[in-house]
Amino acid sequence: MRAGRRNCVAPDHNGEDMTYRKIVGFGVAMTALLLNAAAAGGAGNPVAIAIHGGAGVIDRVQMTADRERAYREALAAALDAGYSILESGGSSVDAVTAAVRTMEDDPLFNAGKGAVLNHEGAAELDAALMDGNGPRAGAVAGVRHVKNPIELARLVMERSPHVMLVGEGAEEFALEQQVVLVPNSYFRTERRRLDLEREIQEERNQQKPTPVTGTGTVGAVALDRAGNLAAATSTGGLTNKRHGRVGDSPIIGSGTYANNESCAVSATGQGEFFIRSVVAYDICALVNYRHLSLDAAVHEVIQVKLKRLGGEGGVIAIDHAGRISLDFNSEGMFRGARDSHGRREISIWRDNP
Amino acid sequence: MRAGRRNCVAPDHNGEDMTYRKIVGFGVAMTALLLNAAAAGGAGNPVAIAIHGGAGVIDRVQMTADRERAYREALAAALDAGYSILESGGSSVDAVTAAVRTMEDDPLFNAGKGAVLNHEGAAELDAALMDGNGPRAGAVAGVRHVKNPIELARLVMERSPHVMLVGEGAEEFALEQQVVLVPNSYFRTERRRLDLEREIQEERNQQKPTPVTGTGTVGAVALDRAGNLAAATSTGGLTNKRHGRVGDSPIIGSGTYANNESCAVSATGQGEFFIRSVVAYDICALVNYRHLSLDAAVHEVIQVKLKRLGGEGGVIAIDHAGRISLDFNSEGMFRGARDSHGRREISIWRDNP
Repeated sequence: MRAGRRNCVAPDHNGEDMTYRKIVGFGVAMTALLLNAAAAGGAGNPVAIAIHGGAGVIDRVQMTADRERAYREALAAALDAGYSILESGGSSVDAVTAAVRTMEDDPLFNAGKGAVLNHEGAAELDAALMDGNGPRAGAVAGVRHVKNPIELARLVMERSPHVMLVGEGAEEFALEQQVVLVPNSYFRTERRRLDLEREIQEERNQQKPTPVTGTGTVGAVALDRAGNLAAATSTGGLTNKRHGRVGDSPIIGSGTYANNESCAVSATGQGEFFIRSVVAYDICALVNYRHLSLDAAVHEVIQVKLKRLGGEGGVIAIDHAGRISLDFNSEGMFRGARDSHGRREISIWRDNP
Repeated sequence: MRAGRRNCVAPDHNGEDMTYRKIVGFGVAMTALLLNAAAAGGAGNPVAIAIHGGAGVIDRVQMTADRERAYREALAAALDAGYSILESGGSSVDAVTAAVRTMEDDPLFNAGKGAVLNHEGAAELDAALMDGNGPRAGAVAGVRHVKNPIELARLVMERSPHVMLVGEGAEEFALEQQVVLVPNSYFRTERRRLDLEREIQEERNQQKPTPVTGTGTVGAVALDRAGNLAAATSTGGLTNKRHGRVGDSPIIGSGTYANNESCAVSATGQGEFFIRSVVAYDICALVNYRHLSLDAAVHEVIQVKLKRLGGEGGVIAIDHAGRISLDFNSEGMFRGARDSHGRREISIWRDNP
């Protein structure tokens, strides 16, 4: 459409009646603009995005001013990467992919580069993406050589008949799709190596593991101009996890869910609790079946049901009107929200955003 | 308790007052019986179990009388294996494990021995178990050397802090738990080799794959005397599937779900549709949040929502009162149901059970 519009307003030097051509050209351009707007659901429709960079114990003592600034800047970069796509009429699927990819590439977060290490010292990555239009979904688990697992999850959704691929099979698919593989060492950072070392030492001494500052899955949810919702989540899982352990992030319904008829959710926290509670879908079911507001549904699942079972973590959620809910029952959750009504915020703790 | 009871009524030849001993012995025996009954939630409480051996196109022409009889006998064996556990006061988790293990060991079904083969000719198995009491859950995916994947899923639930283990990591856990591994050839049968050969040939000729008679996941749901629900599912997935593809069976919420507060469900069908629709949890959510009867909830999900998306398959479901729902939108579903009100049935097609 944009190409067509450019052609219509391009100068014409072939000697015909320029006034007539210009009028027709203007008409065609306007039609193209209107069609563009219609296809995007109207430029006046709200757009919104929320992101998280993990929930858990985020120790204020360990969190120096420099470190806090770095997290806030990284969250802002991911938030704005997603929002700029929505603002220019792009899809919610593109927006959540961009936001998550930005955090995967940043070693501060436990996804992609900088992911936590499993018991054997390897990074083992999981990711999922769901398009509320359809709905369609793609997920990968246990991949070790895919730079951006969220992009592989998207390829599973768009170019395979399957929803979920795991391990070597997922990487074979990546190679077929001409995704360039990277060595596992690409993901591993000194900080995560020390985290693992400490946790193995504590395990040997039968100590309770020290909570690790800043671990945590990344995720994004968005509403685009066309009214489509999407959710994406990516993670390295748990430090010192058993080889082959899959948490809630790549489980459609638990860590990731989107449906235009209800809402889109991305979760972060103690994955096993989130799987057993089918957290992401449960929030949408409460909206859809019990007609709770998004805030009330999120509160019910995170502050009541999950807490009762002893599960810690949080979610970001968005509904068809662009209402955003960010809630967690842990000490903090790295998070951000931005919408077309002018909201733009980055927060870490509950009391002091 | 049973051992204690046997001791109490055993003959006593040591010369003490036998009448007195007998009275005390009788009292102890009765107490043991009553405690047994109390532990099991009362002998009068209903128990019930339902099983499936896969849904899909079950061609009546291909299905000879001998073959049909073999399926009915195999289903009855699995049903009764589970029911006898419930009848003697055993747990629903034990009952669904026994029913599914029986079908895993029978090459007629697409689970354990006789599982369908992936594109490379290997059996790649998935299973999940959920205990509605807790709830707790365990799942494995992409295992190639575990004779009874349902038992490994149960070990994940009972002896690991995780819910889901996949691939090699799951098999490492199996070895740690002293599960004896079998060569992949144990699972492979001539019938499944021919199925794969035909499907690869059809793929080469770009033909639509011929539906394969009798493929399909196995599963069981049960209610025990103590009022606990459980669900279990096990599968070899799809013939000619891509290495690493995971369907709905091991996904908690999609192919398998149980919660004492609502219901227990095991699904079978086109896994990708079941994942996107979070089928098993959706049925329980409709029961819990919209107060639909179990039958109405199953109908809504299988006959309305899943059909609208083009998804084919079925579920077995059970609620806290022992009500059973068996429904499918495909040509048939191998299935059975038995309860303490005297119901005992095995069915394949809709019109001619």
